[in-house]
This record gives sequence, C-alpha cells and structure tokens, in this order.
Amino acid sequence: MTPEPPYYAVIFTSQRTEGDKGYAEMSRRMEELASAQPGYLGIESTKGPDGFGITVSYWSDEGAIARWKANMEHRVAQGAGRSAWYAGYTIRIARVERAYGFAMPPAA
Amino acid sequence: MTPEPPYYAVIFTSQRTEGDKGYAEMSRRMEELASAQPGYLGIESTKGPDGFGITVSYWSDEGAIARWKANMEHRVAQGAGRSAWYAGYTIRIARVERAYGFAMPPAA
Repeated sequence: MTPEPPYYAVIFTSQRTEGDKGYAEMSRRMEELASAQPGYLGIESTKGPDGFGITVSYWSDEGAIARWKANMEHRVAQGAGRSAWYAGYTIRIARVERAYGFAMPPAA
Repeated sequence: MTPEPPYYAVIFTSQRTEGDKGYAEMSRRMEELASAQPGYLGIESTKGPDGFGITVSYWSDEGAIARWKANMEHRVAQGAGRSAWYAGYTIRIARVERAYGFAMPPAA
C-alpha cells in the first residue's frame, strides 16, 4: 500500500464521546478529502468497542500533512466541534524510516 | 503518556486469523515484557470487529526497538506462529517529530 520509506505517518489516537453527533459523516468526508490531496499515500483506521480508536494516515512529505491538518481543523471547527466528538486525542507526526511485513500466500 | 519528541514509534497493523490459538496469552505476555524493557515509553492498541488491529508502541531509541523486535520474533516463533495468528501484518518504524493533543477538562 505504501511506497518504500522514507515517508510520513500521522498517528491519531482518540477517545470518542458517546453518540454520533455528525461524526460518521464528517469522518467519511475527511477520508474522501484526504485521498484527493496531493501527497496522500493511504489511511488505516480501527476502533474498539470502548470508543478508543487509532487512525494512521500516510503522506509523502510534511507539506502535504500541513495542508491536510489545516483542512481537518477547519472541518472540526465547522462541525459539532472537538469536545462534542472527542474526550481527548493525540496527534503524532512521524517519519517512517523502515517498513516490512508478512502476507499469507493465498490458499491453493 | 509519552515525553517530548523526538522518540520512536513502532506502528504494527495486522489482520488476525479466526480463533485464538494462544494469541491472547502471547499478546498479554508481550506487553508485559515490553513494559519491562529499557527505553519503553508506552503502548496503545485497538482492534475492530473485523479482526483488523493497530498497535503503536513508543520507544526512546532504535536500540530499544531492536531488542524488543528480537524478543518478539522469538516469541512468535515459539508460539503457534505468524501464519496461524495473522493473515498479514506490516511493521513500520518511525521517528516521532512532533506531537500535540487535546483533553477535555474533567466535568466540574
């Protein structure tokens, strides 16, 4: 999915509040907007039953992240707002230096 | 939870196979071992109902990650093995350069 390193990752860990309050729609739109942005490489996201979620988006460079961040903050400000959607979150900007993996070969 | 950057993050994204096969026990032991390791800063993990999970562990430096990796591979090799537990996974080693967050103030 992602190219050879180096590239950038934005690690977004969050604790959701209860109730949707327009969150699902905002989240869907954000992913759509991200994927249309130059420098976007991909996104992976998962959330447990306790509302704790991790989303990692991948970017070619820091400029692309800065543009995405401005866009995201704009959307959150326009929407129900961060304190309605989140009890808390942390955003970490990191430079991916190495990557490796494993995929099970398809069943014969 | 984590100190001021820079520090390191290991982003582990995985697709689990069905059934436990000793996975939960291995996972619990791994977290215990990680937290006892010099250079360990913390771990965050979540998994959706589809078996796709993201675990991010935080480390002070690359040496700590290398020791942890050797330990982890040893355990996986001793256990049911990666193809029993995982349909696939990717590990990314990244240097966290900036971090910021938001926490809702406690209710009055």
